[in-house]
Amino acid sequence: MKILIDGMGGDYAPQEIVKGAVKAAGEIDETIVILGPEDRIREQLDACRWKGNNIEIVNATEVISNDETPAMAVRRKKDSTIVKGMNMIKNGEGDVLISGGSTGALLSAGLVVLGRLKGIRRPAIAAWFPALDEGGSTLLLDCGANVEAKPEYVYQNGIMGSIFVRAIKGIESPSVKLLNIGAEDGKGDELHKEAFRMLSEADINFNGNIEGRDVVFGGCDVVVTDGFSGNIFLKSSEGMSLAIMGQFKKKLTEGVIAKAGAMLAYSKIKEIRNVFDYSDVGGAPILGLKGAVLKMHGNSQETEVYYAIHKAVPYVKNDVTGMIAEAVRHNDGLAGKKENSEDEGDK
Amino acid sequence: MKILIDGMGGDYAPQEIVKGAVKAAGEIDETIVILGPEDRIREQLDACRWKGNNIEIVNATEVISNDETPAMAVRRKKDSTIVKGMNMIKNGEGDVLISGGSTGALLSAGLVVLGRLKGIRRPAIAAWFPALDEGGSTLLLDCGANVEAKPEYVYQNGIMGSIFVRAIKGIESPSVKLLNIGAEDGKGDELHKEAFRMLSEADINFNGNIEGRDVVFGGCDVVVTDGFSGNIFLKSSEGMSLAIMGQFKKKLTEGVIAKAGAMLAYSKIKEIRNVFDYSDVGGAPILGLKGAVLKMHGNSQETEVYYAIHKAVPYVKNDVTGMIAEAVRHNDGLAGKKENSEDEGDK
Repeated sequence: MKILIDGMGGDYAPQEIVKGAVKAAGEIDETIVILGPEDRIREQLDACRWKGNNIEIVNATEVISNDETPAMAVRRKKDSTIVKGMNMIKNGEGDVLISGGSTGALLSAGLVVLGRLKGIRRPAIAAWFPALDEGGSTLLLDCGANVEAKPEYVYQNGIMGSIFVRAIKGIESPSVKLLNIGAEDGKGDELHKEAFRMLSEADINFNGNIEGRDVVFGGCDVVVTDGFSGNIFLKSSEGMSLAIMGQFKKKLTEGVIAKAGAMLAYSKIKEIRNVFDYSDVGGAPILGLKGAVLKMHGNSQETEVYYAIHKAVPYVKNDVTGMIAEAVRHNDGLAGKKENSEDEGDK
Repeated sequence: MKILIDGMGGDYAPQEIVKGAVKAAGEIDETIVILGPEDRIREQLDACRWKGNNIEIVNATEVISNDETPAMAVRRKKDSTIVKGMNMIKNGEGDVLISGGSTGALLSAGLVVLGRLKGIRRPAIAAWFPALDEGGSTLLLDCGANVEAKPEYVYQNGIMGSIFVRAIKGIESPSVKLLNIGAEDGKGDELHKEAFRMLSEADINFNGNIEGRDVVFGGCDVVVTDGFSGNIFLKSSEGMSLAIMGQFKKKLTEGVIAKAGAMLAYSKIKEIRNVFDYSDVGGAPILGLKGAVLKMHGNSQETEVYYAIHKAVPYVKNDVTGMIAEAVRHNDGLAGKKENSEDEGDK
């Protein structure tokens, strides 16, 4: 297995990417391929005093930044880490691409270079959301790949999310819920009512609607939604978490007494921060492409890179991509709903 | 001015409702009318040793619960606090109705009894959202009245929200933003792109898109959205806030050292809790009806009732309802968009 990682993606690239790769490489047998300007990556590897033999470098001289229009950048920057990585996946020179770079560019390059799986209407961007139950996290999708959603997309998110969570967490039949404005059946707009109906008939463990308030308390493994609501959900939760944690940091350093209190309670406060720390949970996949792609948070550092690489292994070993293709072929639930050969996938 | 309050709405009715009314009545000249079973309300007033002359009781023998289907309950329970209150507003026997009861029933009764203002496509449910800037709160609408939204509704939310915030907070030209999946112009689905265009042309202080992550940090007075996204936004933020605060409460009582630390930092922790406490901000209006309606959180107690009554005064004094009617008449921006005489309001 070859795990490709974008050496230039994210706020702390290339240094932290290389450090995370080195840390992971010492624990796994798989080969890690770092894409980036060869001299810069080599320099970081030397700084880590890397002596092993399961890290390779593939020279990629360009980087796509977050400020660029994804589609245009993907077309122009053929030697970028992301486009080159996608081409390697396509040509069988790599099994999964991990990147902390532009999500838009990853999605765009994924669509252009790899293409959609046959039967998949739209790929979805997933994210791990913190959950206060034993599972510790819930997979949320779509987080923004398709803002103009159709019920079929939401339905397929349920199938793809189930397969991914089963592969990564080893849960036999992950429970799936639909993000909606009320927990009762029959809630929501037409899009969500129809998605509910389709999910109910799917060969997955669908458990009905869930309200935005309840997701963080856990109780299900996958939450599916349209890309617009998913994005609003994810970002508003993140904003609230950042705001509250920020207030604690600020207020608990005001005055000697509060400061002393905060010092005594420090280890507990750190535990809480870790629970709600988004970057901790590692990479999340873009599902529905003809290849495995894992997106890390842009602020990923050594630890997050390390976790993402560890999550990439079962993603590939369990052939999530192949299983999604298979599931959609046999159980797409979309009979009679074909339109404009949208479900033919890409060539 | 007569302020009507639903004596039976919410988890702590009638006791806390009456206590809040008594507290407010001592400070204002306006008459407060409490609706509910006369004997039960009288009993609570006696328990408060109320001796003033600006609280009245209007006997209403029925209550609509949260478990009932709003439209059906409104039709059947003519002597419920909510339906009776709406009828009093309609007949000029009251100027504003405050309730901590079922939001659905309030909206439904508002539509059936009062009707929409002429030119208003759909009334919207607003909510105050905590903000970490000087303003301290942002008005968010729609929070779920219209899950099947159109751009015109979102646009009118901007007009209604502006007028309400100007009346309540005294801000001359409240800044309005559109909740979207990105801050840049041109983001979002067709609904939000069109709403953006309409808001840009409106006679309000429209400042573009805002992401879910940024609302809590403040910087604008009104955030407009469709009812589905607004509901997801509000509930997911609330869930995250409850989850984090709950974790602090739990973790900081684990072990002697953390407990001691928490005690020292107690006043600061309480300050933080107050910032993010949803119930603190008081009632939020249902806008676009032919009358003033203020919804309190279902868990409202004395303090929240007291605040809601205080917020009701400028709501009526500044004639928010009349100003919305006026604004829509002169500047509805909907010319050429009339459909099925939807903008004719209700009779």
